[in-house]
Amino acid sequence: MENLTQLSYALDTFYFLVCGALVMWMAAGFAMLEAGLVRAKNTVEILTKNVALFAVACTMYLLCGYAIMYPGEDAAGGILPVLGTLIGDEHTAEAVLSSEGSTYYAARSDFFFQVVFVATAMSIVSGAVAERMKLWAFLLFAVVLTGFIYPVQGFWKWGGGFLQEAKFQDFAGSGVVHMCGASAALAAIILLGPRSGKYGKNGMVNAIPGANLPLATLGTFVLWLGWFGFNGGSQLKLTGIENANAVAQIFVNTNAGAAGGVIAALITARLLFGKADLTMALNGALAGLVAITAEPLTPSALAATLIGAVGGILVVFSIVTLDKLHLDDPVGAISVHGVVGIWGLLAVPLTNNDATLLKQLLGIVTIFAWVFGCSFVVWFILKKIMGIRISQEEEYEGADIAECGMEAYPEFTSK
Amino acid sequence: MENLTQLSYALDTFYFLVCGALVMWMAAGFAMLEAGLVRAKNTVEILTKNVALFAVACTMYLLCGYAIMYPGEDAAGGILPVLGTLIGDEHTAEAVLSSEGSTYYAARSDFFFQVVFVATAMSIVSGAVAERMKLWAFLLFAVVLTGFIYPVQGFWKWGGGFLQEAKFQDFAGSGVVHMCGASAALAAIILLGPRSGKYGKNGMVNAIPGANLPLATLGTFVLWLGWFGFNGGSQLKLTGIENANAVAQIFVNTNAGAAGGVIAALITARLLFGKADLTMALNGALAGLVAITAEPLTPSALAATLIGAVGGILVVFSIVTLDKLHLDDPVGAISVHGVVGIWGLLAVPLTNNDATLLKQLLGIVTIFAWVFGCSFVVWFILKKIMGIRISQEEEYEGADIAECGMEAYPEFTSK
Amino acid sequence: MENLTQLSYALDTFYFLVCGALVMWMAAGFAMLEAGLVRAKNTVEILTKNVALFAVACTMYLLCGYAIMYPGEDAAGGILPVLGTLIGDEHTAEAVLSSEGSTYYAARSDFFFQVVFVATAMSIVSGAVAERMKLWAFLLFAVVLTGFIYPVQGFWKWGGGFLQEAKFQDFAGSGVVHMCGASAALAAIILLGPRSGKYGKNGMVNAIPGANLPLATLGTFVLWLGWFGFNGGSQLKLTGIENANAVAQIFVNTNAGAAGGVIAALITARLLFGKADLTMALNGALAGLVAITAEPLTPSALAATLIGAVGGILVVFSIVTLDKLHLDDPVGAISVHGVVGIWGLLAVPLTNNDATLLKQLLGIVTIFAWVFGCSFVVWFILKKIMGIRISQEEEYEGADIAECGMEAYPEFTSK
Repeated sequence: MENLTQLSYALDTFYFLVCGALVMWMAAGFAMLEAGLVRAKNTVEILTKNVALFAVACTMYLLCGYAIMYPGEDAAGGILPVLGTLIGDEHTAEAVLSSEGSTYYAARSDFFFQVVFVATAMSIVSGAVAERMKLWAFLLFAVVLTGFIYPVQGFWKWGGGFLQEAKFQDFAGSGVVHMCGASAALAAIILLGPRSGKYGKNGMVNAIPGANLPLATLGTFVLWLGWFGFNGGSQLKLTGIENANAVAQIFVNTNAGAAGGVIAALITARLLFGKADLTMALNGALAGLVAITAEPLTPSALAATLIGAVGGILVVFSIVTLDKLHLDDPVGAISVHGVVGIWGLLAVPLTNNDATLLKQLLGIVTIFAWVFGCSFVVWFILKKIMGIRISQEEEYEGADIAECGMEAYPEFTSK
Repeated sequence: MENLTQLSYALDTFYFLVCGALVMWMAAGFAMLEAGLVRAKNTVEILTKNVALFAVACTMYLLCGYAIMYPGEDAAGGILPVLGTLIGDEHTAEAVLSSEGSTYYAARSDFFFQVVFVATAMSIVSGAVAERMKLWAFLLFAVVLTGFIYPVQGFWKWGGGFLQEAKFQDFAGSGVVHMCGASAALAAIILLGPRSGKYGKNGMVNAIPGANLPLATLGTFVLWLGWFGFNGGSQLKLTGIENANAVAQIFVNTNAGAAGGVIAALITARLLFGKADLTMALNGALAGLVAITAEPLTPSALAATLIGAVGGILVVFSIVTLDKLHLDDPVGAISVHGVVGIWGLLAVPLTNNDATLLKQLLGIVTIFAWVFGCSFVVWFILKKIMGIRISQEEEYEGADIAECGMEAYPEFTSK
Repeated sequence: MENLTQLSYALDTFYFLVCGALVMWMAAGFAMLEAGLVRAKNTVEILTKNVALFAVACTMYLLCGYAIMYPGEDAAGGILPVLGTLIGDEHTAEAVLSSEGSTYYAARSDFFFQVVFVATAMSIVSGAVAERMKLWAFLLFAVVLTGFIYPVQGFWKWGGGFLQEAKFQDFAGSGVVHMCGASAALAAIILLGPRSGKYGKNGMVNAIPGANLPLATLGTFVLWLGWFGFNGGSQLKLTGIENANAVAQIFVNTNAGAAGGVIAALITARLLFGKADLTMALNGALAGLVAITAEPLTPSALAATLIGAVGGILVVFSIVTLDKLHLDDPVGAISVHGVVGIWGLLAVPLTNNDATLLKQLLGIVTIFAWVFGCSFVVWFILKKIMGIRISQEEEYEGADIAECGMEAYPEFTSK
């Protein structure tokens, strides 16, 4: 016969694991989205990056990332994480196994939920650097981002560091995850330069259409589904009337945000370009999701729809603007996760009284400065040591043959 | 320390949310199924419709649909829903937050579960009108169906209206969802006409093969998975031995129905056409799922297999028959969801003593008359005002370029 | 008001159903993986096989498989299952409905979880025999494997038979499911022979690239996700601190095993072939998952990563070796599920003191001998009666036209 605490423990653990599995599924979403939006000749390479970065993220976060991000109570309010924890987190599981009374769910379920988050942040980067970055340089960067850069800023907010003390609000990670990934991506594409032929003379921007839009659509739906775990799991606890109501509200708002994003982006694109632009609708969905991620709990469902809708409008203008700045982001990752991530963080005070614009700005500036700065340095070193861009010929021929020695669709594309 | 009611509340809420997430996932299934079964030149457009209709459905149901469908106890047994509820449902969440004692799960989780159902009904329509309907006319129709037509008949059955009082049985929506979608689709294709070139002289029916059958297969598997949430969640409560056993039986029967549908459709197609027809096997799976949806609880697993198998046989003959009637349904949606939906409703009395053939017929006729009638009027108005069909040239060139300004597979199809 | 036992019963049932739904999803994973790795002209056929085998497996396991595998306590330790149980399992559900006190979850949820396992075993076979085996012969074999061969060896271990008594350890089925499927596949390809043109003179091995690598990648991610249910559900019970901790550890280790497999396979392939080989990375992920399946609970997450990594290295060498032996396995199923399945079983004693190398070898030899032997006989009989291989012309033209009368991508491939 179980007792109540044990049942609650089991249910909260299961809730965490189900949500974590949904977030893991987002890795497939990013892979499909990005593979659908690049040209056929660069598809295998981006798929390889997506599979490999997920594996690298999981392993690095196990080796040191989790320990840096969640150093325990001694580090509360700090800036420097406890470096002694670099030896890994295997002790954590032990601790929980022997302290039923004080914990609420299996420590391993928390680890599982967190490890898929860091992979999400890294997945954002792969899209922005698509079609021109070297595979192994990318994976080396993944080692540093997922093992160190992400965990440090994650510690500042979710691990109890100074951003948490400063009451910066970021419920499920518009900043800690999405803007983080976008900041690393921005540093990369500045150093990397645009794809050959993307920008012509006299400010001409050439459209480079993706090879497989059903795949991109599938990826978007996968991300939409996975986001229920991403936001819904971030309540961290299901049991209790209040928690259960909160998780339900978060599911509804997450969905509403995405729906608002789709509608707004579709209409915006229709007004700007005269057509029902599918890729904008997809980016609108993702923008709506990113926008509501900073605060998916306090808005009403209608407010969530509107917050998502603003995200959907913003993403269209941001994509156009980045192209004007010759910042080439083949899948729109920096617009979706960075620009709209900032919008999401700034929108928190609209519905959550614990947040202020100033504290939100503190968080935004801190995360951006840290992640962009560190990433720039790491990309710069990689560029000097091994190069981060494939050669002109390789780019012309396609990264697939150059990096992976195979084609994604050998029978469909004529040579 | 939690108490028992709180734990039960949390578990039932979570059960609802997980099932709802699975149903949301069906949106991806419909999108992939339909995108795989149309020609390459109409793929972006149908993807856009699927993403946008989901967003529209979620938003309209939030704005007024849910309130129309679930007006509360005052409207019990009624025909007219309470129009005062049109102002939206935000009050519902409030109510639940303050009345722990009398509710069993978060009201928001119920909203989430219901909102994905209306999207399912609308997804059915997009397949039948594929390759020739205007995008914006379709989305305007989606506004009316999801905000008004669907909720009214949903109120009649699930909201406590007169079909519920009359003991019409429709456990998870063979009628309320599937036949509803199919009835709206039928009205549309009658007014829309067949695709150019589909029907030749002397009764010749030209096969127009889908461009991407792996995508259609993926869509079917997605729907199969999502259906566990669709039927399993319709028990509405998990806790208690009886409920848990019921949900388990529903999962088993749902799976058995699909399996029976596949086997029967595959053999039927083999006998009729001499080949192992994949698209018929896929439609057989969906037919089995639709057939068991009206009553997934009372049949034994073996009976569920047989109910699904009859659905699988019916769908093959229905698809052939509709083509003879020159009713052009590119993905077989009317056969799968309409014809087999009726079969599912009529099969309920076989295993459920609370159902009678007469009551089932009352429900079928009522839902069909309401949805077909309203839809016909709305489509007719849209046809007069803005037109519902793209031009001959646009149809020849493909809806993708005409409506969305882009191609789904720009590198794979030769021009 | 619920009591504690009822809540625990509901939660454990739900846990089983969610895990089972994830395993059902693996059917989609195998379908996409295999469809992506074959040539375009054989894609519809392998999709049809995958959909149909799942339906056959579910139906046969319902009709007799489950009853053979779980005959109840009378058969404990036995070799022969109780043949009286061949009449089906419908009695089981009855029994549970009337005995709340002694059971822990709905019997139907256990059936659901088990039925998707047998489908997994059969899915493994379809990949190995791709591009040359007759569809209906394959489905007849599926009837025998899922209705008899698999359940008998499943009974020996999980049904309480002699392998269980002998303390052979196979937590989630590296042997009972994966090696079982691979053994049946090996028997098939020996009798079937390699694809035309695969092996040239002087030991030359011709690469036959898959037509759609994004699809294969999607399939791998689907399997990765589904595997959380496969391994996580095999704890069989969630409630109680110890069970909840175990399930959490299993989720973490399953993910870690896959991650280790990807990294190791990618590096191994890079060293051997000079390129970042995507298909090897995908097989590495699956190998890591198979390797950790025999014991996903006792290793630390780091150990799980290493066990997966060894699997990732092994799979690369195994694929190369099988080609040297002219055993043509288009998707690498025998290497992933057979060779690495054996590694997984042999690795159990490294972290689980209840296991010994000798007992593990007993299990491996028993399962292989039974499944390979029976399968060989069945395939042989099928070969004599109806033939198992399509004709040379059909193979040249493609199995799709020959067996299914349609093409997977009619607009993408030039004729």
